[in-house]
Amino acid sequence: MNITDFQNIIERTYGERDRTRGVPSTVAWLAEEVGELAQAVRKGNRDQQLHEFADVLAWVATLANQMGIDLTDAAARYANGCPTCSALPCAC
Amino acid sequence: MNITDFQNIIERTYGERDRTRGVPSTVAWLAEEVGELAQAVRKGNRDQQLHEFADVLAWVATLANQMGIDLTDAAARYANGCPTCSALPCAC
Repeated sequence: MNITDFQNIIERTYGERDRTRGVPSTVAWLAEEVGELAQAVRKGNRDQQLHEFADVLAWVATLANQMGIDLTDAAARYANGCPTCSALPCAC
Repeated sequence: MNITDFQNIIERTYGERDRTRGVPSTVAWLAEEVGELAQAVRKGNRDQQLHEFADVLAWVATLANQMGIDLTDAAARYANGCPTCSALPCAC
């Protein structure tokens, strides 16, 4: 799946509702989901881990939508390897 | 950019080093980056926000790499809209 397609489907699924709640609430939800991912990584099974990785991606995407950030533009920071040393693998 | 391509480039750039540090350290780094994103969203400029969104995506990707999780499989959870109500937009 394309990052842009994922961001668009999250916009169509949750954009209006999440925008109504506002950015601070979305940041709080993202933090909550990162906590759930941390727990799934520590003691969850594979299905739970997949679920929580998906939810973190979805909350990052809806926050980006509210901020007018294109995640494909963001991801481009790493397109050529490490953005600090420009090496692949990173040689920092 | 494709989610798989992004995950692969993060593996090639940071995989060996991040794997050496281990999963708990990667979870800690991810938490730190989410904090930096929250700050950039609150008071950063657009470039800082792009940077921090990118870093959160990168840390999610390297954690997924260490856990053997394919983020494209994870993202598929939202491919048809809300995974709970199967509606688009979500009708939960």
